[in-house]
Amino acid sequence: MTDTARRAKAAAAVLAPQPRTVRDGALLAIADALQARAGEIVAANARDVEAARAAGTSEAVVDRLTLTPERIDAIAADVRHVVGLPDPVGEVVRGSTLPNGLELRQIRVPLGVVGIVYEARPNVTVDAAALCLKSGNAVLLRGSSSAYASNTALVAVVRDAVESAGLPADAVQLVPGEGRESVTELMRARGLVDVLIPRGGASLIKTVVEGSTVPVIETGTGNCHVYVDEHADLEMALAILLNAKTSRPSVCNAAETVLVHSAVADAFLPTALAALTEAGVTVHGDATWQRAGKETGTEVPAATDEDWAAEYLSYDIAAAVVPDLDAAVAHIRRWTSGHTEAIVTRDQAAARRFVSLVDSTAVMVNASTRFTDGGQFGFGAEIGISTQKLHARGPMGLPELTSTKYVVTGDGHIR
Amino acid sequence: MTDTARRAKAAAAVLAPQPRTVRDGALLAIADALQARAGEIVAANARDVEAARAAGTSEAVVDRLTLTPERIDAIAADVRHVVGLPDPVGEVVRGSTLPNGLELRQIRVPLGVVGIVYEARPNVTVDAAALCLKSGNAVLLRGSSSAYASNTALVAVVRDAVESAGLPADAVQLVPGEGRESVTELMRARGLVDVLIPRGGASLIKTVVEGSTVPVIETGTGNCHVYVDEHADLEMALAILLNAKTSRPSVCNAAETVLVHSAVADAFLPTALAALTEAGVTVHGDATWQRAGKETGTEVPAATDEDWAAEYLSYDIAAAVVPDLDAAVAHIRRWTSGHTEAIVTRDQAAARRFVSLVDSTAVMVNASTRFTDGGQFGFGAEIGISTQKLHARGPMGLPELTSTKYVVTGDGHIR
Repeated sequence: MTDTARRAKAAAAVLAPQPRTVRDGALLAIADALQARAGEIVAANARDVEAARAAGTSEAVVDRLTLTPERIDAIAADVRHVVGLPDPVGEVVRGSTLPNGLELRQIRVPLGVVGIVYEARPNVTVDAAALCLKSGNAVLLRGSSSAYASNTALVAVVRDAVESAGLPADAVQLVPGEGRESVTELMRARGLVDVLIPRGGASLIKTVVEGSTVPVIETGTGNCHVYVDEHADLEMALAILLNAKTSRPSVCNAAETVLVHSAVADAFLPTALAALTEAGVTVHGDATWQRAGKETGTEVPAATDEDWAAEYLSYDIAAAVVPDLDAAVAHIRRWTSGHTEAIVTRDQAAARRFVSLVDSTAVMVNASTRFTDGGQFGFGAEIGISTQKLHARGPMGLPELTSTKYVVTGDGHIR
Repeated sequence: MTDTARRAKAAAAVLAPQPRTVRDGALLAIADALQARAGEIVAANARDVEAARAAGTSEAVVDRLTLTPERIDAIAADVRHVVGLPDPVGEVVRGSTLPNGLELRQIRVPLGVVGIVYEARPNVTVDAAALCLKSGNAVLLRGSSSAYASNTALVAVVRDAVESAGLPADAVQLVPGEGRESVTELMRARGLVDVLIPRGGASLIKTVVEGSTVPVIETGTGNCHVYVDEHADLEMALAILLNAKTSRPSVCNAAETVLVHSAVADAFLPTALAALTEAGVTVHGDATWQRAGKETGTEVPAATDEDWAAEYLSYDIAAAVVPDLDAAVAHIRRWTSGHTEAIVTRDQAAARRFVSLVDSTAVMVNASTRFTDGGQFGFGAEIGISTQKLHARGPMGLPELTSTKYVVTGDGHIR
């Protein structure tokens, strides 16, 4: 592992000063090679799929694991899309001429070596490699052991393409070994790996955040809230709530808790309960929601602290009635994972207060939590959604895969 | 300690939404209170000074520790200067209207709770508190135990002033206890403390970086290099070298190694040796520098790997001759702490290559390494110099004490 990281660091040094045309050339070579060698990738993937089925893996997970020539075409198309994105490297972030005549520029530079630990889907292997190469970084990939054969085949194709484009193959490497210890070694490679981005379930992220000496960007856990204000358009509130909860319950920007102002509880709860139930959602409610359930003949299990804290990722939602906006904010501050919270209101002052008091990555006013997404935000690509405050917060595009350096030019300036 | 951090987190929540006038009002109250209560601060400081003298502390360190009414006036003036700096909070970093009509804004928000671990000088206590309050953050201060009485008095004055301005006193707290364990507890307060900034010697920084579960911003170690290129103006090179080494050897942006292109070694080494020696600098040289020493009758001890790695912070410099620019870059990449490197050259291509290949916080072209400094860069204030790549790199001003959040406004938008 240390050797792998050392080779990555050496490759990063070669990669960093390359102009955009060279990096884009490598991406185009990767896209071409993926399609040209789709056969060997599909064959390797078939071994993973067979093993997964033999292990009794659910068909939904097997489907996420499966690669077909059509899916490989789509992955190649995504790589070509990255080619067209603006180059973050070399962007002048800040610049001025100082009073003494020194010319100061702060410019974007690659981070160096980016480690990515992720689960199941093998398309992430290529996505992550493409975004890292585009931003001038070497990448160490540590995918799920259930996709090891697929990832090995994909990385072999990518490395050959990178080399054919005149860049070091070691700019893209799979972390050797399938066991937990390879993650641990990656987490301890401080000085060789510049940043580690875990993408996956809460337990993976917790392990990496707590055990890593390499700087980590925490991603993705989403206990998102929708707050229906006293002054909400209740029809809009219901549409946003249903969209936030049910349009794709398995993702991090799905809503997990709904909070309703007591002034509109009588009007909103019965309709909301009926609509959520019809959509197949189980509501875990406080006393008021349970009472509404009893009155409408809907089963509403009592919400516990576990429910307020839960990232269900399923057709479940926690639900409470709050006396006012500040109580909604207090509930959110106590239980949120800091991803996305929405307010539905017609009242400008309420919106302003909610936005100012809620301390999360994204705050939605009269919009679904589902919009927190690099694609939706117009970034063109996303390496993950940071829920931490340092370096990057929210959807991370190419600029978030860079650092900066100051270049100061004089003609013999001394202090 | 956990109670302290909890109180800081609660104070941060109150502080974050405050408008600039309120935060600036607190700073002005602090400046006034420092001057009004200078007597009690000086009295407390006298106890630290007495204890330091009794412990045989050097007079230079005692001087750094000492507070006088005049020095307190200067500290108060610095606080008033911070009042005049632009407010980073609320700045719109990025904004657009998305194709679906959603209005997206990325705005600067305070980080939350900032922990600062620092050594000796009690003026840092007030500086750090002022910068954190200005940027809307609560601060946990852990100064040197040798300044404990001074810091206790300063923080008492600051807290009273903060409270008199209508903000929670707990926005500024001294970490309780004088022992190492209080630092350890601060390092483990993940979830309560948002970032930890160690300011001080290399061993303090190493301890915090390796042991902290709270995200850290690594600051300050500076093994800075001056490279004298084949095409350098040798008079300019000598002026820059002398300035970088001798204008203030104890600071992190002082030069610690000089590398000279072999083509100009014969012309440069004897003059440089004479000038450095006259300035009281010991040159730890490679074989070529030692030979030049022998020829000019100057003592040049042999440089070892320890010298290449050293942050001397004294009148010592490591010195080598390199065959070309790439060898200089290779030496720097191997030994640098990533702070600041300078090239002296007339050749545009050499400058461009050096800037592109050196991976440090700041690269100087024909200027002294001493310019890497928030004040020199025109930031108006500096909380430290980051030598890491994530979040902030280089001198950190007020914007570096903030995070961002996305605010997305719609009129019922769903996906």
